[in-house]
Amino acid sequence: MYVSEVNIRVRYNETDQMGYVHHANYACFYELGRTELFRKIGFPYSELEKSGVMLPVFSLKVNYLKPAFYDEKITIKTYLRKMPKVKLMFDYEIFNEKGILLNTGETSLAFINKETRIVMRAPQFLLNYFTKYFE
Amino acid sequence: MYVSEVNIRVRYNETDQMGYVHHANYACFYELGRTELFRKIGFPYSELEKSGVMLPVFSLKVNYLKPAFYDEKITIKTYLRKMPKVKLMFDYEIFNEKGILLNTGETSLAFINKETRIVMRAPQFLLNYFTKYFE
Amino acid sequence: MYVSEVNIRVRYNETDQMGYVHHANYACFYELGRTELFRKIGFPYSELEKSGVMLPVFSLKVNYLKPAFYDEKITIKTYLRKMPKVKLMFDYEIFNEKGILLNTGETSLAFINKETRIVMRAPQFLLNYFTKYFE
Amino acid sequence: MYVSEVNIRVRYNETDQMGYVHHANYACFYELGRTELFRKIGFPYSELEKSGVMLPVFSLKVNYLKPAFYDEKITIKTYLRKMPKVKLMFDYEIFNEKGILLNTGETSLAFINKETRIVMRAPQFLLNYFTKYFE
Repeated sequence: MYVSEVNIRVRYNETDQMGYVHHANYACFYELGRTELFRKIGFPYSELEKSGVMLPVFSLKVNYLKPAFYDEKITIKTYLRKMPKVKLMFDYEIFNEKGILLNTGETSLAFINKETRIVMRAPQFLLNYFTKYFE
Repeated sequence: MYVSEVNIRVRYNETDQMGYVHHANYACFYELGRTELFRKIGFPYSELEKSGVMLPVFSLKVNYLKPAFYDEKITIKTYLRKMPKVKLMFDYEIFNEKGILLNTGETSLAFINKETRIVMRAPQFLLNYFTKYFE
Repeated sequence: MYVSEVNIRVRYNETDQMGYVHHANYACFYELGRTELFRKIGFPYSELEKSGVMLPVFSLKVNYLKPAFYDEKITIKTYLRKMPKVKLMFDYEIFNEKGILLNTGETSLAFINKETRIVMRAPQFLLNYFTKYFE
Repeated sequence: MYVSEVNIRVRYNETDQMGYVHHANYACFYELGRTELFRKIGFPYSELEKSGVMLPVFSLKVNYLKPAFYDEKITIKTYLRKMPKVKLMFDYEIFNEKGILLNTGETSLAFINKETRIVMRAPQFLLNYFTKYFE
C-alpha cells in the first residue's frame, strides 16, 4: 500500500450558502491528493500527460461525514492499495485540524491514450515507480 | 416514482485540459437536476431553506461513461424512486443531444434543522407535495 | 453595435457563505454570454477553436452593484460595440427578474493561433459574420 | 504599505480546454491572498465574519499577462497600499516559479453589517491591526 498526505486550507469560494464546503469540491480535493501522491513517487502527473497518457476518472464515491468550513486546515490522505493495471484505484480520507474524520471517498481512473482516446494498460514506465511499494 | 428533466449547455469554464467536462461538475449538474425537480413538484428548494430546513448531500456516486464537451446541450434526468423519510435519495442520468447516456449517479441527502444543524425527519409540508406520486 | 441576451438560473454551487453568488462566477456568466452571442451571429465559438483560433481573455473588469441569489433567474446582456480587429471587446450587464441591474463588466480578448500560441489578427471568416452589424 | 505573500500549486480542475488556468480562478487566488494577509496581520477574516462584518467585493480588475499551467507553483502577492476607511483596496501580482509576472489585478471591498446588510465604516478593532503599518 502507498499513502500520501497533503494539507490545504479551505478557500472562501469553496463554501456555499449553508456555510459548508460545497460537496462538489471534494472531487477536486481528491484530485489534489492524487497529484501529490504522483509527485511523491517521483513521477508528476503533469509528466504523464506530456508522455501521451491521460487518466480520467470513471467512478467516484464520496461519503460526507461532517462538513468542512472556510479557512480550516484540512488533511487529505490518499491511499493506493493495489498495483495499477488497467485501472488505478484510490481511497481518500479527509481530516480537520483536530484529527476528526470529515470525509471518505474512492475513485477509479482509466489509462487513456491521449491521441486515440482509447483505453490502454498502465504504461510500464509508470508502473516502475510503483513496484517497489507493492512487493 | 417521480422524474424531472432539464437541459443545459456545457459552459467553457466546466472544461479541463483534457478537453472534457471536469468530473467535479457532475455533482453540480445533479444539484441543478434536484432544484428543477423541487420546482416541478411545486415547492422550490429555496423555499425549503427559508422554512429552516437544509438538505446537505451525505453520499454521492458518479459513473462517468462518456465525456461531455463544451457547448453540448445535455439533458439531466433526476429520479426520485421512493417517498422520502429521513433521507432523500435521487438517481441521475445525463444524456447528450444524440440521446447517448454519458453519466449515471446517485445522491443521498439528509434533512437538517438549519438552527440546530441536527438531523430531522422530512417535514410534513414537503411530503405533502410528494404523496400524490407515491400512492 | 450587436447585443445578445441569455437567461440562466443561479445554481446552488455558485453561492458562498454570505448567501450571495460568489463574485468569481460573474467571469463565467460573461463567458456564457459570449458563447450565446457567437451562436447568435451564426458562428459558434466551439467552431472557432476547431478552426485553430483561441480567444483567451486578457482583461476583465467587474462592478458588483447588487448581489444575485440562489435560484434567481438572471439575464446576461452581452454587447459588442466595435468591429473586432486585433482584440475583441465586450461589455456586459446582468439583471435580475425584476429588471434590477446587478452587475456590469467588460472583457478584452485576444485572437491566438492555437498551434503557435501567438497573437494574430481576427480571422476574416469570423469578421464576415460581424460586418453586417457594423456598417 | 502592507504586503503578504502566499504560494499555491495550480489544481487540475482550475485548467480549461485551452490548457490554461481558467481566467475566473484568479478572483479566487486574490481572495486567498487576502485571507493570508488578514491572517498575517493577526486578525483572520473568518473572525471578522463571526464578529458580524462581511467584506464583499464590489469591484474587480484583472490583467492576464501570461497563462498559468497545471501543477505550477505560483506566488500570490497581495498589497494593501492605504489604510482602510469605508472601502478596502488591494492590489495583486501573481508570479510563476521562475519569477515571471503572470497576472496583476485589484479589488475593492466594502464593509457590510451582516445583519442589516448595509454598508458601514471599517470597524475600529480591525483598523487597530493595520495602524502600525500606516504611520
